[in-house]
Amino acid sequence: MREDIQRMFEAQSLAVVGSLKREGGLWLRIQSGFKGKLYAVNPSESGKTFNGVPVYPSVLEIPDRLDFVILAIPAEVIPGVIEECIEKEVKTVCIFSAGYSELNTKEGIEREKELLEIADGRINILGPNCMGIYYPKNGMTFNPNTSSEMGTVAFVAQSGGHAINFALRGNVEGIRFSKVISYGNGCMFDSTDFVEYLIDDPETEIIGLYVEGVRDGRRFFEVLKRASAKKPVMLWKGGQTEEGAKAAISHTGSFAGDIAVWNTLMKQCGCIKVDTIEELIETTLAFLSPTPNGRKTGLLSVSGGRGVVFTDIVSKSGLEIPSFSERTKNRLRKRIFPVGSSIENPLDSSASWLDPANAIETIKIIVEDETIDSVLVELTPDLVQRWHETHPEYMKKFFENLGKIKEKAEKPFFVILPFSYLEEYRIEIKRELVKNGIPVYSSFSAAASSLSRVVRRFFYLREREIHRGNSLVS
Amino acid sequence: MREDIQRMFEAQSLAVVGSLKREGGLWLRIQSGFKGKLYAVNPSESGKTFNGVPVYPSVLEIPDRLDFVILAIPAEVIPGVIEECIEKEVKTVCIFSAGYSELNTKEGIEREKELLEIADGRINILGPNCMGIYYPKNGMTFNPNTSSEMGTVAFVAQSGGHAINFALRGNVEGIRFSKVISYGNGCMFDSTDFVEYLIDDPETEIIGLYVEGVRDGRRFFEVLKRASAKKPVMLWKGGQTEEGAKAAISHTGSFAGDIAVWNTLMKQCGCIKVDTIEELIETTLAFLSPTPNGRKTGLLSVSGGRGVVFTDIVSKSGLEIPSFSERTKNRLRKRIFPVGSSIENPLDSSASWLDPANAIETIKIIVEDETIDSVLVELTPDLVQRWHETHPEYMKKFFENLGKIKEKAEKPFFVILPFSYLEEYRIEIKRELVKNGIPVYSSFSAAASSLSRVVRRFFYLREREIHRGNSLVS
Repeated sequence: MREDIQRMFEAQSLAVVGSLKREGGLWLRIQSGFKGKLYAVNPSESGKTFNGVPVYPSVLEIPDRLDFVILAIPAEVIPGVIEECIEKEVKTVCIFSAGYSELNTKEGIEREKELLEIADGRINILGPNCMGIYYPKNGMTFNPNTSSEMGTVAFVAQSGGHAINFALRGNVEGIRFSKVISYGNGCMFDSTDFVEYLIDDPETEIIGLYVEGVRDGRRFFEVLKRASAKKPVMLWKGGQTEEGAKAAISHTGSFAGDIAVWNTLMKQCGCIKVDTIEELIETTLAFLSPTPNGRKTGLLSVSGGRGVVFTDIVSKSGLEIPSFSERTKNRLRKRIFPVGSSIENPLDSSASWLDPANAIETIKIIVEDETIDSVLVELTPDLVQRWHETHPEYMKKFFENLGKIKEKAEKPFFVILPFSYLEEYRIEIKRELVKNGIPVYSSFSAAASSLSRVVRRFFYLREREIHRGNSLVS
Repeated sequence: MREDIQRMFEAQSLAVVGSLKREGGLWLRIQSGFKGKLYAVNPSESGKTFNGVPVYPSVLEIPDRLDFVILAIPAEVIPGVIEECIEKEVKTVCIFSAGYSELNTKEGIEREKELLEIADGRINILGPNCMGIYYPKNGMTFNPNTSSEMGTVAFVAQSGGHAINFALRGNVEGIRFSKVISYGNGCMFDSTDFVEYLIDDPETEIIGLYVEGVRDGRRFFEVLKRASAKKPVMLWKGGQTEEGAKAAISHTGSFAGDIAVWNTLMKQCGCIKVDTIEELIETTLAFLSPTPNGRKTGLLSVSGGRGVVFTDIVSKSGLEIPSFSERTKNRLRKRIFPVGSSIENPLDSSASWLDPANAIETIKIIVEDETIDSVLVELTPDLVQRWHETHPEYMKKFFENLGKIKEKAEKPFFVILPFSYLEEYRIEIKRELVKNGIPVYSSFSAAASSLSRVVRRFFYLREREIHRGNSLVS
């Protein structure tokens, strides 16, 4: 199984079977960055080229070894093409086409069973009803706008829409992917198989999952537990409610199961629950940061009222907001804050942050406080705009210096850049921050709940270590 | 009390006392849109003009009736100026300056008491430590970027930062304000007084509140209850946790009280709890819509996987997702959807929405379904971009038609426009939607929880009516 999946990613030649005017052409354009050899298959346009790609009448006519074939043709004609692929010794067919168990009809379910019968262990099938693979390393993708840079985050999704959405939205937030897999109805390989594969995948450090249903619940949770012990695993469950479960059936033909059972099992596995694409992105950003050693969080806020709400939200997330160390207080008092001003956590920076260089110094001192496990800094577009007016020459350096602080910090360091009436300007600032490697959150809540998930995992793993230690002793 | 507050908004002449190079000059610039007469007071620059505003050595020298005076001078010299204002028969002084009870020192608390002693019923004091009033009708404001258009939303805030933030962020989301009041430490008028005033304010239909603490809890909740019976009241409580409460003391000198007590009382009052600026904005948008007659919600989503999550989130918010009426299904089948396709709620529009005119027709039919109380439509920036490519000539009309549907709908009609990798483009689309009067939400969760608050209020009021009816009968 592991080797079968590994082969999907090692494909060095890829063919798309389908109408060049419609889905087939679309897929060829999407795969135009593929670093191996690319072929088109279409009997009626054979001999031509499409986008520089040679067109063959059938996979059998391709004068080369063929590793991976995307099928974008009606379900009815797929069995014949699979037979040809088997003859050609293709390793994987990826079926984009729908018309299978997601129809929730006898015919659709039968048609999906038939796929397995045809394959009969001689070829691997990804899908049907899926978007396939995004693997930046060899340029394979499912959308023309995905990044070509490799990262360490893997995402396994029963929904192609979510796979594309996470890949694209994650990218603008600074997340880069090792492997993203949309497996659709998953007739041969489903979430369990891919997660099992990713446990030992050296390219993957963080695993995200969108699942509507699984075939073998026992095996799924057993694999999830092994995976969670080694890497953070975020699980986004589709079909949590009766109505959502109904929608899931007509989406991927999945029976969603009881969410209470799922929640309990997720917790037992040490798996991280996320419920929206936003939570998935925000939590991934947090897990890309260094692990904190505990709950003690330092907050910097740009005004008193915001500081009150910031504190409420962070505190409700189960994090602690202790006083800064005496050393930190002295450093701030000596160098930045006016005599007599109180140095509290959250630090209300409004008075001392007229100068962005002062802001950098302040942030640096808080990050260097050894009693603080994580640092959350609020910047507002208004404030940065004011700095741009008063200290234009410094601002490039400001973002670079902030990036250096983040890079040196051996603890989570997040910036909260709230939405603002300065909408376009906020995007510009965010890009500067992301470019300098800084995780950016759009609200106190998002930052706090993401950080709290990382902290919970830290304590979960520590507890597990203690138990293991104990059992070794006893 | 009511008349005292009414006078603040009826000010026809306004003076700013303060250093023209610093806070005084800032406030004069902020008030440059004031529609009444504007004066500056500064002994050392007397006789000059600032930004076209004449400078006088003292309020007493202003050759005119004076209604409203903003004090942006050190706390120590304020008592003397108040005495002069009383002599001048000024109705309201608004004290921007800090240095009072928010210091949580004996001196600061004494100084605030002294303000009331000096006033002695002869003048009204707003603040201290406040940003004052934003009243679009007469051009009075606390920030140069607030809209000059009148609306129906009032906001009363103990925090000037939150007042400005809601005014500016609300504006880009399509929210317009009747009156926004930042009352700071509220030595003479606090949240209770302003809410009581707003109950009968004909310019205000929705009331928002940010409160850290109140002086007289009993009276506050009594007023809140009366207000909630007449208008939706959203309460955002700062200092909900021990740590947040500590931060509130040094912000406005408020003792925040036990949040459990607050939560219970809010519920009893029929008051709507919001916990973040995002929730405040989103809930306000929902209350600006027509009231729904129940929980039945129609959903339109652009893909299967998104529909599953959409359904889960809406369903978890306590809303219902029933089947559409037979008439609706027939209308859709006849005119838009391919024969044999299932017309389910949520409606997966991906197949039929290649043409944006079809999307308009589909949406219209769902909105016209009499069994549906509210409609939530997902649009993605990707989809709109595709439409812009395939149907460029129609897109202006698309947004106008969507606006017309919203205007005619006698039920909540929200668009969910999720964040996207097309960041700037999303802002453009949002502006088009907002320009056409459509409430735009950035996530399923935001739309669902806001709608559920409106629905809860509908049932709260209905229950209240029934009880009242019963007691009249018995």
